[in-house]
Amino acid sequence: MKNIIKYPEQNTWETLLKRPALEKKDLRNTVQEIFLKVNQNGDAALKEFALKFDQVSIDNLLVSTEETEFAINEVSVELKDAIAQAKENIYKFHLAQKEQSIEIETTEGVICWRESRAIEKVGLYIPGGTAPLFSTVLMLAVPAQIAGCQEVILCTPPQKDGSINPAILYTAQLCGITKIFKVGGAQAVAALTVGTESIPKVDKIFGPGNQYVTQAKQLAMEYNVAIDLPAGPSEVLVIADEEANPEFCAADLLSQAEHGNDSQVIFISTDENVFNDTLKEIDKQVAELPRNEIAKLALENSRFILMRTVDEALEMSNFYAPEHLILAVENPRNYIAKITSAGSVFLGNYTPESAGDYASGTNHTLPTNGFAKNYSGVSLDSYVKKITIQEISKTGLQNIGKTIELMAAAEGLNAHKNAVSLRLKSLKNGI
Amino acid sequence: MKNIIKYPEQNTWETLLKRPALEKKDLRNTVQEIFLKVNQNGDAALKEFALKFDQVSIDNLLVSTEETEFAINEVSVELKDAIAQAKENIYKFHLAQKEQSIEIETTEGVICWRESRAIEKVGLYIPGGTAPLFSTVLMLAVPAQIAGCQEVILCTPPQKDGSINPAILYTAQLCGITKIFKVGGAQAVAALTVGTESIPKVDKIFGPGNQYVTQAKQLAMEYNVAIDLPAGPSEVLVIADEEANPEFCAADLLSQAEHGNDSQVIFISTDENVFNDTLKEIDKQVAELPRNEIAKLALENSRFILMRTVDEALEMSNFYAPEHLILAVENPRNYIAKITSAGSVFLGNYTPESAGDYASGTNHTLPTNGFAKNYSGVSLDSYVKKITIQEISKTGLQNIGKTIELMAAAEGLNAHKNAVSLRLKSLKNGI
Repeated sequence: MKNIIKYPEQNTWETLLKRPALEKKDLRNTVQEIFLKVNQNGDAALKEFALKFDQVSIDNLLVSTEETEFAINEVSVELKDAIAQAKENIYKFHLAQKEQSIEIETTEGVICWRESRAIEKVGLYIPGGTAPLFSTVLMLAVPAQIAGCQEVILCTPPQKDGSINPAILYTAQLCGITKIFKVGGAQAVAALTVGTESIPKVDKIFGPGNQYVTQAKQLAMEYNVAIDLPAGPSEVLVIADEEANPEFCAADLLSQAEHGNDSQVIFISTDENVFNDTLKEIDKQVAELPRNEIAKLALENSRFILMRTVDEALEMSNFYAPEHLILAVENPRNYIAKITSAGSVFLGNYTPESAGDYASGTNHTLPTNGFAKNYSGVSLDSYVKKITIQEISKTGLQNIGKTIELMAAAEGLNAHKNAVSLRLKSLKNGI
Repeated sequence: MKNIIKYPEQNTWETLLKRPALEKKDLRNTVQEIFLKVNQNGDAALKEFALKFDQVSIDNLLVSTEETEFAINEVSVELKDAIAQAKENIYKFHLAQKEQSIEIETTEGVICWRESRAIEKVGLYIPGGTAPLFSTVLMLAVPAQIAGCQEVILCTPPQKDGSINPAILYTAQLCGITKIFKVGGAQAVAALTVGTESIPKVDKIFGPGNQYVTQAKQLAMEYNVAIDLPAGPSEVLVIADEEANPEFCAADLLSQAEHGNDSQVIFISTDENVFNDTLKEIDKQVAELPRNEIAKLALENSRFILMRTVDEALEMSNFYAPEHLILAVENPRNYIAKITSAGSVFLGNYTPESAGDYASGTNHTLPTNGFAKNYSGVSLDSYVKKITIQEISKTGLQNIGKTIELMAAAEGLNAHKNAVSLRLKSLKNGI
């Protein structure tokens, strides 16, 4: 096991915690080409790309009712129950994020408030690849449903036989998604951005993906489409004191490591025994994992760090700004106030990170790559706009009118001033 | 007066409401060059650009205490009082946006909540140009103060004599900003993105600007810095029924038109008299404006539309998604539920748009260019990240453990499953 660091000085943290440099190929031109083709040829371009990139011939991009019904029968009752419980928890947590509209009287007669409105059309992208992420369908579609988005479109690449994984289809229909398209990669994002004969143009695009999808989402913004979050490889930081369970710590670190070669896991312990035992446990557990080749590669990007106090460990965590932060320490609630940057936090020995991935109720679409410093994860807020509203009475305008006139004049914006002056004059004449 | 349209059919709306095409020069290369130079040469590059673009020689980029003190004396007591009232209202409205953290028990023993944390370092850009926008300093700095951002940096271009407008300096110090730099344009955004000897690198950049600044903010995102909003020219849509006052309508339309040549104003009336009188009033009022050349150019992009009902007018407004929407109609509150897309809404005859620009308390940094469909304006939310936190008890994990195991297995993520299985096993053995 490499990358063991004991009691590092603060001035070494930056180098120590450097994330593995993303092989940032310049995909801009490639993806721009894809956008142009989708814009010109619509569905035909999408079918061409499916043949070229996925080696699948697609007749109908839209998943049919029959296909969905077939998928519903394919999913076991057990899994359906599991999905139902996860959905309920996600629903409860996101429903609680609804903002109550409160009127604020900032000055007598001047009333201001905010109201939320759903973003009308949203597009969800669910990647294909090694894992069929039906959990991500829940995470992206449930808040869309709560927000009341009018149109929720899902794009996901077809499997080799032209079908979509049944669990993805099942979950999508469970969340009220009626339009599911067999299209993946940058071309899916392009289709949601510019629209084709069958795929509607949307206002915002959500979902994970590879470097092409990430680049396509960046390009979508230049077409005035919003996106959920900038993307990056998944990561976890575990802080463990003497109360931590090495077996659990190892399992949590590995559950992040199995995501992809480029995942990063950081383990900080204040206890040498827990530290050493966790290292041993990792070796033991990794051997038994089906995805252990991926996990082993990811472990090469890992860091195992001994530190003196949990406070110091938290300082380091804030500096790193992890996507997931596990506090496997005594009385973890005592440390919450000290967390300044993290995507999602897991408290104590019985809150594994995978609970947040599936079923605790929090969203698993989170800021990675240090973005926890300046972005929040996906929440109900991601699906709404908040409109400010103001209503000023005659008295209200008399109370703030002079202020507006003076400020507008000082900024040299006389028409702004005039809009108030004319009203104040009419009120004066009215008396 | 051009652009008068009477009772347009719905299928003509798209063409009718097309925003003036932005002359989208490809500034990417130019701005990329600026970023590279600032990255390489730091402060020296900024001083070179000041000389080149602003024809000003700057010794010290940081505004000195003496300069700020001088500015404080320069601003009149009257204007100080006005700024104080505006600040108080903005403060009250944004303070009310603080989210209370509520714990949700999604399943027995599974507790989830969110906590807000300030984005640590934010950079505010205040453009120079025709109007010294000290009101924008209030709009961007007051919520930063409420959020508790640790470092709030302000960049603004120097005037020809090397000084900064006193009202900008006064307002900045009033809002607790201690680091104000004399640097403008794309190079200011570059400095905030990569950092220089004197200007700290920030996590998020706020503020309006010209096309170079807009392009620079787009580029900043590729350097992992967040931005407030994509930018576009200012716009207002006024809906007026027979209760509207043509004099006021004209003044509101002109207060938007004076912003810039590329501003757009749209007037929709359901009453022919109000419609015709407003057109006349515009001609009368525009003649007296100091910035009437700008306003006249903007009016060329304007639309004056007669429609049959306020409901139909609102449908058109939602389609356009205006930055500012004025409802100069009887019982405006009755129509709020029908608004789906707008940046900020102004109700009734005594709520001019300029009230929101300065002093009602709402933020004037709003989505333009149709972005009201998918973005909110700046609010307290823009300065914080919301971290999700979960705490699961032993019972809690027993309640949702099987769900996580089943879902993880179905996604082929065995380490995720294992993190739960090991814990459930230890609990079973513990009994």
